[in-house]
Amino acid sequence: MSGPGRVLVAGTGLIGTSIALALRAKGAEVWLSDADEATAKLAADLGAGIVVPDLHDAKGIADVAVLAVPPAVVGETLGHAQECAVAEWYTDVASVKALPVAQARRLRCDLETYVPSHPLAGRERHGPAAAQADLFLGRTWALCPLPETSADAVAAVTSLAVACGAVPVTTDPETHDRWVALVSHAPHLVAVAMAARLAPSSVPADALGLAGQGLRDVTRIAAGDSGLWTQILSANAGPVAEVVAAVAEDLAAAARELAAESAPFGESGQTDVAGLLDRGRAGVARIPGKHGGQPRNFTVVQVVIADRPGELARLFNAAGAAGVNIEDIRLEHSPGLPVGVAELSIRPDQAGALLDAMEAGGWPVRR
Amino acid sequence: MSGPGRVLVAGTGLIGTSIALALRAKGAEVWLSDADEATAKLAADLGAGIVVPDLHDAKGIADVAVLAVPPAVVGETLGHAQECAVAEWYTDVASVKALPVAQARRLRCDLETYVPSHPLAGRERHGPAAAQADLFLGRTWALCPLPETSADAVAAVTSLAVACGAVPVTTDPETHDRWVALVSHAPHLVAVAMAARLAPSSVPADALGLAGQGLRDVTRIAAGDSGLWTQILSANAGPVAEVVAAVAEDLAAAARELAAESAPFGESGQTDVAGLLDRGRAGVARIPGKHGGQPRNFTVVQVVIADRPGELARLFNAAGAAGVNIEDIRLEHSPGLPVGVAELSIRPDQAGALLDAMEAGGWPVRR
Repeated sequence: MSGPGRVLVAGTGLIGTSIALALRAKGAEVWLSDADEATAKLAADLGAGIVVPDLHDAKGIADVAVLAVPPAVVGETLGHAQECAVAEWYTDVASVKALPVAQARRLRCDLETYVPSHPLAGRERHGPAAAQADLFLGRTWALCPLPETSADAVAAVTSLAVACGAVPVTTDPETHDRWVALVSHAPHLVAVAMAARLAPSSVPADALGLAGQGLRDVTRIAAGDSGLWTQILSANAGPVAEVVAAVAEDLAAAARELAAESAPFGESGQTDVAGLLDRGRAGVARIPGKHGGQPRNFTVVQVVIADRPGELARLFNAAGAAGVNIEDIRLEHSPGLPVGVAELSIRPDQAGALLDAMEAGGWPVRR
Repeated sequence: MSGPGRVLVAGTGLIGTSIALALRAKGAEVWLSDADEATAKLAADLGAGIVVPDLHDAKGIADVAVLAVPPAVVGETLGHAQECAVAEWYTDVASVKALPVAQARRLRCDLETYVPSHPLAGRERHGPAAAQADLFLGRTWALCPLPETSADAVAAVTSLAVACGAVPVTTDPETHDRWVALVSHAPHLVAVAMAARLAPSSVPADALGLAGQGLRDVTRIAAGDSGLWTQILSANAGPVAEVVAAVAEDLAAAARELAAESAPFGESGQTDVAGLLDRGRAGVARIPGKHGGQPRNFTVVQVVIADRPGELARLFNAAGAAGVNIEDIRLEHSPGLPVGVAELSIRPDQAGALLDAMEAGGWPVRR
């Protein structure tokens, strides 16, 4: 497939419909199907493509078929689509890869035409109505070809990922699952376990009033849907268990060391806790920064702003007029007062220009 | 003390100097001392007050003495200041309270005039140069009076906290230490333990390329200074150990359950993992939202923006002109591409106005 060509999207939820919209925007011919007819119809109404009521009538309709169905049914959906010969090549987009691949093998699917894949994108909302043509823009799209997969199949699915605006990365299913366990599934459970400490009624509201941005950040993702996450964790149980067990072990060792320590500052040397703190710093420093590059050092400038319409606009105007690019922004909450602190991350060489602009705009500046 | 009155700040690091600057801005007479003369001099140069070279010559110089020294030396600093009778009332600002109180008791300090306290504010930078008069604006300031502490002492220190713009909350030292273990110290160790998993060289850069905003948020605070955090954790070892051990236990149980599960979706019922996910959601929902109120439900609107100066300004202008208040903003990074997604949190009843404004401003809108 040189361009976007002809594509069948089977499963028109958030991811499937977003892929369809992205490819339509690039001029592809897109066909849609879904076990739920109303869902497929809604995706079509959104401009995602044309509904195919029955795959049996769709022989040769597409160059690539994208199976955007839950991990548990990827295998049988692939088998059915190949039986109907709807496309030359096939991919799925499930967030785990070993499980669908095992099913495909068990069902004796044709693996030569199949490229297991996973676009790293999602939203908190679900369904075709939440779909966005730009959902994959700049996101990583993991491709996990099998030993049996043909080079042509890989090329076709790679070009589809690129047409969606994503950045393809190639690995194998088992490695993929270990990677997402590490960067997504285990962090979710860790955030949840910390947040669970705040739940008991024995924790008074005053205690939570001491919470700062740190606790908010650590626990934010714990608000995700429990049912969905139970499924995700089950589907990648082994790799997640491995990471979470190691985290639990480190924390238990740190707790033992702290508990053993007498109240005044530890004379015990604290090898475990100090070592863990060092390893943590080293780990967080490895997470890539904005635009997939190396983590960059930004200068952070803090500005106290009134919490009313127009305040941030005024601030950004001043920055923009000075030619300063705000690389990141964090709004600090100020419990009890109608003011906030905006922390602006900028390139160090632009700090002077920003401070000048803020001073000119009437914000108090500390040099 | 009806107004800010006369204050001695002993210890002119970030917190001490910020308190001095805040009180000076309110018209207080502020005296400064520090074990390191150059540090005190720098604070004075920043306009924080006048240096007192020797507390022996400072009898009766202040209404309140603020001891802004490390937790380990609060007791002896209090003893010395009371010996010199520099003030009528005393407070310290250490981030743990049981340890300094135990020291003060052991050194037979006068507890009637002493109000242990802790302003919940800090920055990643240190020293007087990083000080800010508005550091405590809207922040909680915990007061932990002892049974011996006089009502007048509590009133004086309360009024000082209020003069700094903080919101006083009263508790006792042991409860305070359990609270900060829960909302600050344990979350730090939990973030560190997750981040530590990313450190080994066996984790390739490609794996970290799959990282999303979730991992970034969970591990952000793990970048803090290891030496400083070793001290903080040691000074509150018991309460931190208790929380961290409970988190470790929950994670170990979840890991055992996941490891026991066979690959295809868990038929085992998954009581531990599902229960933990539910408890985590309940916990995170209890963290107070902006302005110390109940967590509020905001509508999140996503806008794709070019990563160049002026783009955010244009967006905020449009929102401000429409009378829409941006309650929170998060910039999503787009690895590999010079575009980003701004997620704007707004009150649900303002969503229509914002979408109209965006459409008028030329941003693609999905309704």
